Parts: sequence; structure tokens; C-alpha cells
Amino acid sequence: MREILFVTTSRHKVKEANEIAKEFGLKLIQHDFDYPENQDKTIEEIVSQAARQMADKLNQLVVVEDAGLFLEAYENFPGPLSKFVFNTIGNEGIFKLLEGKDRGAYFKAVYGYCQPRQEPKLFTGISRGQITTQAKALEVDDMPWDYIFIPAGYEKVTSEIMNQKKDFSARAKAVKKLAEYINSK
Amino acid sequence: MREILFVTTSRHKVKEANEIAKEFGLKLIQHDFDYPENQDKTIEEIVSQAARQMADKLNQLVVVEDAGLFLEAYENFPGPLSKFVFNTIGNEGIFKLLEGKDRGAYFKAVYGYCQPRQEPKLFTGISRGQITTQAKALEVDDMPWDYIFIPAGYEKVTSEIMNQKKDFSARAKAVKKLAEYINSK
Repeated sequence: MREILFVTTSRHKVKEANEIAKEFGLKLIQHDFDYPENQDKTIEEIVSQAARQMADKLNQLVVVEDAGLFLEAYENFPGPLSKFVFNTIGNEGIFKLLEGKDRGAYFKAVYGYCQPRQEPKLFTGISRGQITTQAKALEVDDMPWDYIFIPAGYEKVTSEIMNQKKDFSARAKAVKKLAEYINSK
Repeated sequence: MREILFVTTSRHKVKEANEIAKEFGLKLIQHDFDYPENQDKTIEEIVSQAARQMADKLNQLVVVEDAGLFLEAYENFPGPLSKFVFNTIGNEGIFKLLEGKDRGAYFKAVYGYCQPRQEPKLFTGISRGQITTQAKALEVDDMPWDYIFIPAGYEKVTSEIMNQKKDFSARAKAVKKLAEYINSK
């Protein structure tokens, strides 16, 4: 197993990524550190900047990841600030914002891979779908959008088909691209 | 005039603060630098951390300021991420979120004052009011919420009573507290 440092405060992200990565002979090892976000930046900019800074700081190869939900009816929302938006207006707020609007949405996950003093390389996964009109009761804290997002080609929200999540999730798609790149080198 | 370094990327903030500060014999000088925000932090935490970091980095007394709009119907929203929320869902999104809800809202502005290697001191101003049900057309980019916020005790949105803004604005109240503190030392 090749081990690679994954800079993130989220154990959940590491676990989810490793379910895919192990199929490629890779193991992501958590380095628990919080890098700054900024309300003017896209997910790609956040990841790019964090990967470069952390690779230089730790003087070794790192990966970082950021992901968000994007509503087709709005621009870049909640996107990079999905966690904040869930914590403040929650699914109820999302439903209000979508009344009478296009309910299309997608998840985007972006991995940044960076060697010290080099340019970061980004790997993006996108999972399209629809927002429901009613939320299932939340049972976990970690992935609240899983309760209101129906991936394209399925008829249930993600939380009801968790055992299939790695077939369609944005994170899984991005991890695969990252792993294929690492193995091709 | 006593001059004090104000770390901010916004010329508008400096101008608005100086209209008050000059009455106290103070002049805020802009140091154009962007400090990190973070979606897990309150306005107070952002200001506190930025003031301390910038005072140490520049090795001199600095002030920083952060402000946001808070809707009574939600918790901490849009608050520290007001700029992002305006840029993504805008006034239209705010109106949707408030349909059938309490339209009470307040602005909060927090100044952080910090000497190198000391604890920051915070000064908070709050301006309460109501969100309108219709937006006036936007004419300026800088202060979009001024077009939908009616301060308590007034009958018009802020943008229509700009010449009175320093009598009620959260920023004016916070600057006054900051200036009184500086002059008392």
C-alpha cells in the first residue's frame, strides 16, 4: 500500500476516500490541520492554494479536498460554503430557496495533489441530481445533503442508497482520477 | 490627528469609519491586506484572530473590522458570510428565505484593536431593523443590504436615508466605541 498524506480535519472524508483508494493500492493518511477558506474563492481556488501551502509547509507530497453542493437555480451556492449554509439555514432554507425554481443540483469534489515547490494538480468529480421537496429525518451529522439529494439515475435520496454511493458520488469520481494519476507516474 | 493602521481590502470601510473617527481626532489609514475567513467562525472570532495575527505580523497597533447582516428567522445567517450570500442568492434569495417568517434583522459590526503580542480588544455596534418585501433597484455595488434594510425608528431603507446613516449604523456605533477607548488611554 502506498501511503499519501491527506490534509483534512474530517475523519469522514478520509474514510470515504479510502474505500475507493484501496482499490488502487493507495492509503490516505489523515494529517489533521485546518487550512483557511475565504468567501471570495471557488472550491478550485481553495484547494489549489491549500495544497500548495501545505506541501511547502510539510515539505512533502500532500492531497487536500474540498467539496460542495451547487444548486442550478443559483450561482455558486452553497458551493464552497455548503457547511456554513447547512448549519445556518439548513434543508428548510434550501427548500424555501427552491420554491418555484429548477431543482437540479450537483455535487462537486475537487482533490488537489501537490509536491513541495511545485504547481498543484486538481482532480474533479461531479455527481448530478435533483433536490427533493421533503427531507428525510436526519440521522447523521456528517453528510446532511445526502438526505435531500437524489442522484441522476436513482429514485431515492443518497442516504437511502448508501451502499451504492461509491458508484455515483462526486468524491468517489474525484478519488478515482487522483488514484489513476498517482499510479500512472 | 492620531493615525491608526486599519487592515482591510475595502476602501469603502475606511471612508465610512473615518467619517466618525475624525470627530474623535483619529484617522484610520488603510493597510490593504486580506486575512483569512473561515466558515466555522463567528464575526468575533474572525476579527479577534485577524487583529492578533496582523498586529504581530506588522509589529504595530492595528484595527480590523468585520460586519454582517443577521436575520432573526435564522441562526448566524448570512452573518460572517454576508458578502458571499449576497453574491450568490442576492436580495431575491433573502426574500424567499423570509416568506412567512419574522422579517426582523440586525447589522453587527465588530472592530478589533490589537497591540503586538497582546490580546485583542473588541468593540461591537448593532443596528436593528426590518427587511423589506421589495428591493429598490441597486445603484451601488458596495452595500447591497442598504437597499432592503429599514432601520428601527425610520420608514425608509438605508439607501434612501444615507445622510442619516451615521446616526444608526452598526459600523458608526462600533467606531465610536473604538474611538472613545483609544482616546481614554
